[in-house]
Amino acid sequence: MTSTYQRIVLASRPQGQVAADNFRLETLAIPEISEGEVLIRNHFLSLDPYMRGRMEDAKSYAAPQAIDETMIGGTVGEVIASKNPRFAVGDKVLGMLGWTEVGVSDGVLMRKLDTTHIPLSAYLGAVGMPGLTAWYGLTQIMQPKSGETVVVSAASGAVGSVVGQLAKQMGCRVVGIAGGAEKCAYVVKELGFDACVDYKAGQLHADLTAATPDGIDAVFENVGGEIFDASLARMNPFGRIALCGMISGYNGEQISIKNARTFLTMRLTLRGFIVSEHMDLWPQGLQELGAQVASGKLKFRESVAEGIASAPDAFIGLLKGKNFGKQLVKLI
Amino acid sequence: MTSTYQRIVLASRPQGQVAADNFRLETLAIPEISEGEVLIRNHFLSLDPYMRGRMEDAKSYAAPQAIDETMIGGTVGEVIASKNPRFAVGDKVLGMLGWTEVGVSDGVLMRKLDTTHIPLSAYLGAVGMPGLTAWYGLTQIMQPKSGETVVVSAASGAVGSVVGQLAKQMGCRVVGIAGGAEKCAYVVKELGFDACVDYKAGQLHADLTAATPDGIDAVFENVGGEIFDASLARMNPFGRIALCGMISGYNGEQISIKNARTFLTMRLTLRGFIVSEHMDLWPQGLQELGAQVASGKLKFRESVAEGIASAPDAFIGLLKGKNFGKQLVKLI
Repeated sequence: MTSTYQRIVLASRPQGQVAADNFRLETLAIPEISEGEVLIRNHFLSLDPYMRGRMEDAKSYAAPQAIDETMIGGTVGEVIASKNPRFAVGDKVLGMLGWTEVGVSDGVLMRKLDTTHIPLSAYLGAVGMPGLTAWYGLTQIMQPKSGETVVVSAASGAVGSVVGQLAKQMGCRVVGIAGGAEKCAYVVKELGFDACVDYKAGQLHADLTAATPDGIDAVFENVGGEIFDASLARMNPFGRIALCGMISGYNGEQISIKNARTFLTMRLTLRGFIVSEHMDLWPQGLQELGAQVASGKLKFRESVAEGIASAPDAFIGLLKGKNFGKQLVKLI
Repeated sequence: MTSTYQRIVLASRPQGQVAADNFRLETLAIPEISEGEVLIRNHFLSLDPYMRGRMEDAKSYAAPQAIDETMIGGTVGEVIASKNPRFAVGDKVLGMLGWTEVGVSDGVLMRKLDTTHIPLSAYLGAVGMPGLTAWYGLTQIMQPKSGETVVVSAASGAVGSVVGQLAKQMGCRVVGIAGGAEKCAYVVKELGFDACVDYKAGQLHADLTAATPDGIDAVFENVGGEIFDASLARMNPFGRIALCGMISGYNGEQISIKNARTFLTMRLTLRGFIVSEHMDLWPQGLQELGAQVASGKLKFRESVAEGIASAPDAFIGLLKGKNFGKQLVKLI
């Protein structure tokens, strides 16, 4: 075992698009742990769109990521030293250690993972925060009935793919929106959505209209902007919208809703949410998602970058939609 | 009694702003009534912003107003002939007879009114559809707690004035938005709001910020556009928005929401609603509003135009915010 490890810190806040020089790779000595602490070697880092928001110094639901500190983020890894009676060397654990090969925890927010039937990386995706985000928005906000039409943007992603598969199980007509023919084919053929609209094909409104002949009853929105406006234009009366993300505006542009009148004319309900504020429902959600992944009923796909140095480029690609499924960084 | 009456029909759909020549005054013979019918002479017509939407031939929550037919609208009047056992000559009644001096009804949607303690015209305002709209949005959507800050646009109007007074009774800090110093003075001094921002004073954002030092927890939105964006910029986490109207776009302009990202960052809930779709709650709401008006606890103000020929100009003025309180037409 080497005596050093690498991490990535936020070097500067982005001006518009995130650039590689907003990050800095550092090499540090592996620390000694104190009584009560655990030393963890991470196997996978999670890269998620919400991190873009944290890079800003703006009023939002969470404090900004500090400059010169390890980039935040979910991690799964293995205990390599422990002075905490709750954890033993070899335990697989979920944490929020950030973009780092090695981290120290007091154990309070660490959770032991069972990898007998669920792969370790899935705890960062379908059986983790993204899966819970999908489950919460669908079951608590959208509440679709059998036969209703559900639309999901960023449909091939870590969140959208779970929303659509769960909605299919509820008997809904499920239409995805994704970028490119390959992602759309995956969404329909592998995930079982009824249709998928390729927003890059240049006829978003016409294609979405064709895919939603009975209008739209519920939307899971990850993107915002033009894509959200296209869904709004198809809403049925009393439609429900779970607003999860607005990745189209993560480079700092203002995001407008142009079809605002639709909220009134169609009597829509829109709710923005952050799943980490609803921890009371996590046990129920994780139990359901875990059972479905273990049985193979819930499918998921990963984009895996290799090595901690690849994290910034992988994250920049994620913001541009270059990932295909849950974006991870595998540490060697 | 004369043998003729006058009514106003929709002559043409507006191109942009409503103009006087979109309407036509007609004189007709008072009809004979058949078995089961009632003949009513109207005393007051209600003019309401929703009528602007009906003049369009666009997809909305209600069918468009037909050309060459009597303009729709709520009315209060008196039975002058009856072949219906439920109604006697002299009964005061609420109906939807439209912009007409005289109307015939089968009685199904007519409601007998008690004017012992409540003036007849109030059944078109604070104890009618506008009052119920206020009551529903506040109690069913905004659900403010004591100590929270509530903002109401079009605060001196038939709906906004009720929202604010009820919210004050619930222990909230209540801030109105209205056009002009006179309306703002009325909202604070007569209705008892804590503050009122005059959007015509040219510093909407700064004035609203000063009036909401603890941010905004709940909004009753009647206007949309720039005024709604100003409120959005002040929202606290988990804020609730009852979307009742977007009068700023009633001339056909597209209404955008520029601060859309706030829905996500502040985890807001927005709901558009039409009170006529919640008839199950009308008895409860009307009982509460009626008791408050009868006791003088709930104040209201009316702008009264005289004579049916004045209705088009009064309606055009309403759309421009020239009314001050509930806009009525008194028939002679």
